[in-house]
Amino acid sequence: MKSLLVLGGARSGKSRYAQARSEEIPGKLAYVATAQALDEEMADRIARHRADRNALWHTIEAPFDLADAISSAAQEADAILVDCLTLWLSNLILAGADIEVAGDILCQTVATCGVPIALVSNEVGLGIVPDNALARTFRDAAGRLNQKLAGEIAEVVLVTAGLPLRIKPG
Amino acid sequence: MKSLLVLGGARSGKSRYAQARSEEIPGKLAYVATAQALDEEMADRIARHRADRNALWHTIEAPFDLADAISSAAQEADAILVDCLTLWLSNLILAGADIEVAGDILCQTVATCGVPIALVSNEVGLGIVPDNALARTFRDAAGRLNQKLAGEIAEVVLVTAGLPLRIKPG
Amino acid sequence: MKSLLVLGGARSGKSRYAQARSEEIPGKLAYVATAQALDEEMADRIARHRADRNALWHTIEAPFDLADAISSAAQEADAILVDCLTLWLSNLILAGADIEVAGDILCQTVATCGVPIALVSNEVGLGIVPDNALARTFRDAAGRLNQKLAGEIAEVVLVTAGLPLRIKPG
Repeated sequence: MKSLLVLGGARSGKSRYAQARSEEIPGKLAYVATAQALDEEMADRIARHRADRNALWHTIEAPFDLADAISSAAQEADAILVDCLTLWLSNLILAGADIEVAGDILCQTVATCGVPIALVSNEVGLGIVPDNALARTFRDAAGRLNQKLAGEIAEVVLVTAGLPLRIKPG
Repeated sequence: MKSLLVLGGARSGKSRYAQARSEEIPGKLAYVATAQALDEEMADRIARHRADRNALWHTIEAPFDLADAISSAAQEADAILVDCLTLWLSNLILAGADIEVAGDILCQTVATCGVPIALVSNEVGLGIVPDNALARTFRDAAGRLNQKLAGEIAEVVLVTAGLPLRIKPG
Repeated sequence: MKSLLVLGGARSGKSRYAQARSEEIPGKLAYVATAQALDEEMADRIARHRADRNALWHTIEAPFDLADAISSAAQEADAILVDCLTLWLSNLILAGADIEVAGDILCQTVATCGVPIALVSNEVGLGIVPDNALARTFRDAAGRLNQKLAGEIAEVVLVTAGLPLRIKPG
């Protein structure tokens, strides 16, 4: 694995697949989590994901400063897993950040960090057009970010029902 | 065909594909329908689907007791088509049933029923996060059920615009 | 390229891909736009798409009479790009038109127009069932139109994060 982008819908098994691929790399593994436990539902999900990972993993929380977290992790770890870009993007949009600039910095950091990195991201554009403008803004931004990263990253996999489909060979 | 899971979005042609694959098997065909005609829109859909099937098919209605219906059908039929898991899951959730247990029993029944079985299921996780909690619960449950079945079933096909893409070879 | 149907979600890069494929054909290119600038958000999108195209392209607006626009364009152009069918369908539904008949006429026109034609269409059926009946009607109609066209057109490509996946070989 050089760098890997794992796309998929909700509950598609994308996180599990990205984790399994990362665990093929011997050595220390850094898990960069972008989720914020703002409510109980979210706290439950975070706890469940954490329990799924074994002792090989060191967790870093980075709801906003993702590029910094990747750069730091790259000093210590032999592989990095970022889960997930969709929550990170959502955090940035709600905070009013410049998401185009943040996306460019992320791409550059992934390209230059020097260790294998897997990034998990949701596909959110295959339903009907959402009613509210914020959801449309988010949907557009998520699609653009996925396109930008897919252009840079060596291997891209689409996961459906736990089954990987390689849409860009590594 | 041993066992086959057909995934796809709404109006993707997944039912027609699953039906065509089932009709390749000579003999008696059992159609296990999970839909309930609770309103006119639904009654129309059911009638349209029934009209699409020819005299080879024997229809069994199983909005809740799907595993039992499969076991009974396996006594008589040479192939079984279940259409669809998404409605069945929705019926169970609305009835307050234990969907994890029901999913496990279904998996076991499919694995041991002894006749070729095709199951149709919707992919529902590729839009934006739904506003209401019930829809999120349903979306999560549907994704987990698809993953569980895809792990057990020999062949998995994703249908888009009527075109099959084999994501797990049979 | 004979004829090409490009499917994908919102911001999947489907328009860019269809445009790139069309530009491989030497000669005059006709861009048939189905969007109506009913509000500022839409006007912005139209302007952005127009700016993405170079001087090779001649733009024809056809929010309703798509088959006529294709027939006219075929007299002048060496290749035609229609972007997108989803907005056209939405325009027809809101106007109360007979979408089955319009879909059949479109299919026939594409089959007989005599120049290579690329059509862009959204996949909208992979989220949860929409709350309102109009959205469900639209979703069903969009799925049926995609199936009908995918049956007729030589090559069908599904685009995810800018990456094409050929689901029907040309």
